[in-house]
Amino acid sequence: MNTQIGPVRIVGTGLIGASIGLALRGQGVPVTLEDTSPTARALARDLGAGEIVDAHPGPRPAEAHRDPDAGSDGIVPGQSDDEPRLVVVAAPPDVTAEVVLQQLRGTSTAVVTDVASVKAAILEDLRRAQPEEGLLDRYVGSHPMAGKERSGGIAATGDLFEGRPWVLVPHQTSTDTAIATVASLAARCGAVVTRMDAATHDAAVAAVSHLPQLAASLVAARLRDLPPEAVGLAGQGLRDVTRIAASDPALWTQILAGNAGAVRRTLQDLRDDVDGLLDALTRLEQDGIEPSGAAGARAVLARAVADGNAGHARIPGKHGTTSTRFGVVTVVIPDRPGSLAHLFADIGDTGINLEDLHIEHGLGSLVGIADLMVIPGAVEPLRAALVARGWSVRD
Amino acid sequence: MNTQIGPVRIVGTGLIGASIGLALRGQGVPVTLEDTSPTARALARDLGAGEIVDAHPGPRPAEAHRDPDAGSDGIVPGQSDDEPRLVVVAAPPDVTAEVVLQQLRGTSTAVVTDVASVKAAILEDLRRAQPEEGLLDRYVGSHPMAGKERSGGIAATGDLFEGRPWVLVPHQTSTDTAIATVASLAARCGAVVTRMDAATHDAAVAAVSHLPQLAASLVAARLRDLPPEAVGLAGQGLRDVTRIAASDPALWTQILAGNAGAVRRTLQDLRDDVDGLLDALTRLEQDGIEPSGAAGARAVLARAVADGNAGHARIPGKHGTTSTRFGVVTVVIPDRPGSLAHLFADIGDTGINLEDLHIEHGLGSLVGIADLMVIPGAVEPLRAALVARGWSVRD
Repeated sequence: MNTQIGPVRIVGTGLIGASIGLALRGQGVPVTLEDTSPTARALARDLGAGEIVDAHPGPRPAEAHRDPDAGSDGIVPGQSDDEPRLVVVAAPPDVTAEVVLQQLRGTSTAVVTDVASVKAAILEDLRRAQPEEGLLDRYVGSHPMAGKERSGGIAATGDLFEGRPWVLVPHQTSTDTAIATVASLAARCGAVVTRMDAATHDAAVAAVSHLPQLAASLVAARLRDLPPEAVGLAGQGLRDVTRIAASDPALWTQILAGNAGAVRRTLQDLRDDVDGLLDALTRLEQDGIEPSGAAGARAVLARAVADGNAGHARIPGKHGTTSTRFGVVTVVIPDRPGSLAHLFADIGDTGINLEDLHIEHGLGSLVGIADLMVIPGAVEPLRAALVARGWSVRD
Repeated sequence: MNTQIGPVRIVGTGLIGASIGLALRGQGVPVTLEDTSPTARALARDLGAGEIVDAHPGPRPAEAHRDPDAGSDGIVPGQSDDEPRLVVVAAPPDVTAEVVLQQLRGTSTAVVTDVASVKAAILEDLRRAQPEEGLLDRYVGSHPMAGKERSGGIAATGDLFEGRPWVLVPHQTSTDTAIATVASLAARCGAVVTRMDAATHDAAVAAVSHLPQLAASLVAARLRDLPPEAVGLAGQGLRDVTRIAASDPALWTQILAGNAGAVRRTLQDLRDDVDGLLDALTRLEQDGIEPSGAAGARAVLARAVADGNAGHARIPGKHGTTSTRFGVVTVVIPDRPGSLAHLFADIGDTGINLEDLHIEHGLGSLVGIADLMVIPGAVEPLRAALVARGWSVRD
């Protein structure tokens, strides 16, 4: 983690690029900023994400380095005084490969990484461009998995990556120095560094991010034509399943298109399951509610839910542990100013640490329910303490 | 709401039946309990959900009422002294219609309701049984939409229905008295009463409850075969989408089978969308990441996410309002005992009411993030107050 990474050049000063700049500047690492939009670049500088030294992205070493024997870009190896040690390409996915190549060709020793959420397609585009021998050795793909609810440099924060996964995706000829440099970048941003090949990464994000997005969107889409009183029956389950259905269509179109193969494969698996369910439901529909009929149809339904149990059990819990189970104390909270604050003050007085909590609100009602999650041994002491202070605690 | 409903007989003392008993007993309404399981019945009594007056569910008025002119059950109208005013059938969905008929025939004036989560199939079963003329007039279906994470009478609580929707599903010949009696039951349990016909109800729960369950299960099922490091990339989106994937397969098999027709119709709509997405993804996959190719494919992806936006926007917010938007203050919380308590104590000191909150934990990290939701005008004061107290608040 002590690998020197600065000076760092960040190309693309949206949410991710500007946040990386803020994180690095917070540690005193010199950062320069480039963006095709002068406004975005100036905004990122004003936020403190780095300095502007060049009005135009692209090849920047002195023209003196031009050599008639060099490749079509006319740039030869040989580090200029102000060449960065690391270039972070934080451009949109559909131009990432092009900008990565441009940066590799415009520098002689700098490590270049990108932060796009898909990796195999970018690597493929880089190779399809038939780069000079050895050029890609300095490239290591990466993917910081930070939240995207808000976009643009204006939403950037230096702690965006704290505790979040940051996947390193080296390819066959990535050098150890390049890998260590990008790992150091991720670590300095506070991220948890993991390493995968491009295909594994793309299949992983298809399953843990892209398919959930599509499922949420598809379930939410069904609500468009419901009568209002039907939508009024929405409970916490629907809210949870569809929370990310509010995501930006333009951004997700790029993400999904960039990972089309892996998303298609996992969506195809889901479609096969849907077909089995449709067949079972059709047979049950024709058969009525009597448990005797439609042999095997109920087993299909039970299997679908049980398979979901099995997959769900694999999701790591808090802090990456897989098996932590907390006890739950459920408290009824009146919807008055300060109710939650009083509840948490009372919990604080007990000295018991809340591991997690979940708040659910009633429909058309002034009542809320808080599930307080604590270590199992703390359930009874917490329950007793809250009851003693007058809280309505569920048995 | 002032309709007299007691004495009430509850047939089936699982989570819902026992919780109704507790809610009614809490208001002094006389309740008797029946269940085919003597253990479940005794447990509900011991919890305070009501009294046991009859060891066996089923026809109970004195044999003296038997009349050779009566139907095959041999019971004639004529209220016995201890006949309940209202019978609540809280039996499993697959025996609900049979028990409802039994209770209608075993009483002469009592209103009978059931609490099954599907309604059209039960009404159909009731009619298929060719009941005596007028027998169903005293029946009104209903559906209290309370949480089901834990099951059995032992999990029962008198506040289970507080603020939750309770759908009344009268049929063509339900009397006004019967409807008013069941509405009063729901109101006394603290529920928000709404009214729909059986088909509308079943289509509504298929879309807001049954399809989300299937989608969660199907997305979670894809995680079974991922390598551990891939599952380790799980973020809050996946957690939210799959939270209900931990549900009980046996219970959900009954629910889904009971609503097979409506679930099939909404799942079929989803499948049609999936097919469109698969076609678009296949074309993009063949085409590479270049934005020029696969004409129209990106529009299919964007449309799917945009349709999800539109559906998601229809979900009522807190307390049944549709348009409330809160401002968000995001705070970094260290994972130390009492951190959350200190945060909420500090919030309480500001006098600002938290409208909602969402806590996200980092992967393999000791850092958590709390999104505090407050009315828009309170965002800046809350932010300033928390910064002044040393909290790390995101810009």
